[in-house]
Amino acid sequence: MATLPVLVSIPLDRHPYLVVPGTKVHLDKIDPADHHLYEGDKSEGKNALVPLAAELGSLQNLLYAQGRKRLLVVLQAMDTAGKDGTIRDVFADMDAIGVRVVAFKAPSEPELAHDYLWRVHSQVPRNGEVTVFNRSHYEDVIVVRVRGFAPEERWSKRFDHIRCFEQMLVDEGTTIVKFFLHISKEEQKERLQTRLDDPEKRWKFNPADLEDRARWSDYQRAYEEVLSRTSTDAAPWYVIPANRKWYRNLVISRILIDTMTGLKMEFPKPDFDHKKIIVE
Amino acid sequence: MATLPVLVSIPLDRHPYLVVPGTKVHLDKIDPADHHLYEGDKSEGKNALVPLAAELGSLQNLLYAQGRKRLLVVLQAMDTAGKDGTIRDVFADMDAIGVRVVAFKAPSEPELAHDYLWRVHSQVPRNGEVTVFNRSHYEDVIVVRVRGFAPEERWSKRFDHIRCFEQMLVDEGTTIVKFFLHISKEEQKERLQTRLDDPEKRWKFNPADLEDRARWSDYQRAYEEVLSRTSTDAAPWYVIPANRKWYRNLVISRILIDTMTGLKMEFPKPDFDHKKIIVE
Repeated sequence: MATLPVLVSIPLDRHPYLVVPGTKVHLDKIDPADHHLYEGDKSEGKNALVPLAAELGSLQNLLYAQGRKRLLVVLQAMDTAGKDGTIRDVFADMDAIGVRVVAFKAPSEPELAHDYLWRVHSQVPRNGEVTVFNRSHYEDVIVVRVRGFAPEERWSKRFDHIRCFEQMLVDEGTTIVKFFLHISKEEQKERLQTRLDDPEKRWKFNPADLEDRARWSDYQRAYEEVLSRTSTDAAPWYVIPANRKWYRNLVISRILIDTMTGLKMEFPKPDFDHKKIIVE
Repeated sequence: MATLPVLVSIPLDRHPYLVVPGTKVHLDKIDPADHHLYEGDKSEGKNALVPLAAELGSLQNLLYAQGRKRLLVVLQAMDTAGKDGTIRDVFADMDAIGVRVVAFKAPSEPELAHDYLWRVHSQVPRNGEVTVFNRSHYEDVIVVRVRGFAPEERWSKRFDHIRCFEQMLVDEGTTIVKFFLHISKEEQKERLQTRLDDPEKRWKFNPADLEDRARWSDYQRAYEEVLSRTSTDAAPWYVIPANRKWYRNLVISRILIDTMTGLKMEFPKPDFDHKKIIVE
């Protein structure tokens, strides 16, 4: 049997998709269809995800068993870029007992009556838990900015808040990884059309998505500022080429595996000698 | 009838008890028995609180009616210094509908499984609300430090976190005032003895209080660093001489009145002409 093509593994601090802290991101210089880290094709790439998802499952189990660290994964993207699909595919082998997905929609009345980080902080992972933010506090410097929901004087201060907030979480024992799923405007067109055409996907279509699409370049500029200003050593951003779903899944899985492996976790040492215990 | 002695009113940014941001606090140079802002005696001082408490009640009602701003009052002190008494006396005329007191005790298991600001952030005031923190996140750089509940490497980073956290709250519309109730070690001795002797106060006594008392100077040094490093324009600390309860109440009330008056609040303008509405 032929060997499967391999996904190139790269140290995280030199990863080609890492937004190096302090550098400026130009999204139009990053090809959303790039797939240079994997030499195989779509079908091979889909198969290659299977062992990666299993490895992620094992690592999550270890995180849960150890019960001392926490992992926060932040997903941000334009509509249809694949946040839901990433969660379904990449986290497929994780155990629901220790994984929690939090989707941040338009804020409710009690949420609006507090600062924007209030609802976010309440949902951060606890010891042993993996939490995935499907959208996040970054909407408060993205959609809020592009749609004018708050004046610049208000949202412009949030970059500092967010850096501080994430640094605090990390100082206190949380690991944070942030992914921006990068698709082309043309790819979004196709995916929106599919949502309209497919009766089983139509529920995901929202006419307001077209209003956001009409502001595509405003969103790209807002994302560029976010990525440039909030990628830190403590909480790095990765810009994931996401036109190819299978490639997106492979790259994210690999980064998560390398991140979790870096935590050097161990199963808790029992305080008994298992050989001396007789179960009758 | 003779005029009542008056409490001297002083602009907040020049208040003698304000910890000017960036300056170093020396608690042993602040007399806990000071009462130089009020020329009356104890009995007159107690009477003088009545109109102040009423004014605070009116201001809280306005804050609630307007429903757009939030007030967070932080109380920190050594045991017996009067946190509970301050709440009872100063907030006496506020309406429970819009005031919430949160006492932070030893953290629970779910609280310990998160960062130390998690439980605190969840309790910050909402629009229109006054929230009083009876102890607070400052315990995480005070008792945690003095009792060695976390290593220095951990707690020493928290001064930055806390400054950032409070700045964020203020940027997003919350007003923060922080009071350290300053008593002498001798005064604490008397109050602890009273708690032991009085059957109706004995429930407040905790033998562990004596362990903290034995670490008096460690606590004073820890407080000095906290006050010096976390008094900011956004969230100032006031060191309140608190050996005299009536004086403590007067000074805190006056500072709160001046702080709330500074918010320049107004009742919401009705969107109807009340003269044209007939209630039948």
